[in-house]
Amino acid sequence: MSCFQMPLRVYIEDTDAGGIVYYVNYLKFMERARTECLRTLGFDKPAMVADDRLFVVHSAEIAYLRPALLDDQLTVTATISKLARSYMSFSQSILRNGEPICRADIKVACVQRETMKPVAMPEEVWRAVKAYQ
Amino acid sequence: MSCFQMPLRVYIEDTDAGGIVYYVNYLKFMERARTECLRTLGFDKPAMVADDRLFVVHSAEIAYLRPALLDDQLTVTATISKLARSYMSFSQSILRNGEPICRADIKVACVQRETMKPVAMPEEVWRAVKAYQ
Amino acid sequence: MSCFQMPLRVYIEDTDAGGIVYYVNYLKFMERARTECLRTLGFDKPAMVADDRLFVVHSAEIAYLRPALLDDQLTVTATISKLARSYMSFSQSILRNGEPICRADIKVACVQRETMKPVAMPEEVWRAVKAYQ
Amino acid sequence: MSCFQMPLRVYIEDTDAGGIVYYVNYLKFMERARTECLRTLGFDKPAMVADDRLFVVHSAEIAYLRPALLDDQLTVTATISKLARSYMSFSQSILRNGEPICRADIKVACVQRETMKPVAMPEEVWRAVKAYQ
Repeated sequence: MSCFQMPLRVYIEDTDAGGIVYYVNYLKFMERARTECLRTLGFDKPAMVADDRLFVVHSAEIAYLRPALLDDQLTVTATISKLARSYMSFSQSILRNGEPICRADIKVACVQRETMKPVAMPEEVWRAVKAYQ
Repeated sequence: MSCFQMPLRVYIEDTDAGGIVYYVNYLKFMERARTECLRTLGFDKPAMVADDRLFVVHSAEIAYLRPALLDDQLTVTATISKLARSYMSFSQSILRNGEPICRADIKVACVQRETMKPVAMPEEVWRAVKAYQ
Repeated sequence: MSCFQMPLRVYIEDTDAGGIVYYVNYLKFMERARTECLRTLGFDKPAMVADDRLFVVHSAEIAYLRPALLDDQLTVTATISKLARSYMSFSQSILRNGEPICRADIKVACVQRETMKPVAMPEEVWRAVKAYQ
Repeated sequence: MSCFQMPLRVYIEDTDAGGIVYYVNYLKFMERARTECLRTLGFDKPAMVADDRLFVVHSAEIAYLRPALLDDQLTVTATISKLARSYMSFSQSILRNGEPICRADIKVACVQRETMKPVAMPEEVWRAVKAYQ
């Protein structure tokens, strides 16, 4: 149940006319952390995990606690909370000065590229995630 | 419990290297429908609902059922499932040929612009939504 | 030298913390108009123009004249200013109440999907654009 | 005429169904480099440069040379090519393994927040950029 962390700066592209980070973009931030988390496990192409398979988001639950602002320096975390043959669940937070501003549970499924049907993730990915977890 | 609908075309900007709509963008599509739903109630500035107040997303729960593809013609729906003084909940779907490809429950809170604290929405907005619902 | 036009509404997703449309997004708006322009010529998949070929932007020149704001109702135009076997140039504007707020010249090249090298566009696309122009 | 550089990773959010980085997003990458370039000069809020003034893009010229791909590790550069009281011009590149894949000239104007009219940038910003240049 290790936790991966990465720093992240808020740019003007991330904000909206409310003067805060556009809420949809927190999901992009969280995906960056999931990607880098898998990259540290040795996978150079974390999204397109094999020629015939890719990881896609199956479902997400997000709670917005406080707004992030332009130029904020944030930390994004990713913990693998559940692992099965064909999917992984992540528990993620975005923090500013250690204080959570957004939390999400995100289930990522491995699917066949052609059919988009669930399929077991490559054996070596499963093993690496299992060991990390 | 009326249901608002709007058509939507998928452009290349909406897609990702998986060849499908980038999952984060469904939330943008759903927000467009919420905005137009409120606009049909007579509010020209649905997001910045008053000089000192704005609507922000408080929490969201999304299920991705099938991928949408480039050039798809979609329909986005928005139903107000709950109304309180300081927030509204929407039940939303994205459909292709009548078949749901994404579903979400989204809670939108009215907040004070300066403090970002919850506040009652303007009386006339509340009344109009109540009548519509 | 016909001119294609389409209406466009500004949503919160399009804005930034400056309270205006994020300047990068005008390019998205313009691409929507180029896409719909080609669609009216009978091409259902305007970007992925053939199995082995796609259209990509080769170069762009943009002038920002006035900011667009949240909830603005805009018009985007697209005129094909030059046509060759392997590329098209578009002259485009974004207007608010008939007044230009952004102008661009955009050169779109047809490339081989595998190599990304320039290639002649499909004969029927070239003919249709030639006739339209 | 110093040149600022920053590293940048391509995420799935940056790509499109062509399997490459969506061309519009190179402009986001370049803005991140301009922002960080100004931040190294000691300005913590590079975009909202003063309470009453902000920097906006006035015009841009971009040439796309080669496509960037998912998971690419890129370098973005920013050189201030011209400095005046109310604007700066940047000459920028995006490189992969030292090879340019995109080049742009971007003129950034300082404007009054209320009127969006050109105005002299804050004295200390002008001095710092002048010294850096």
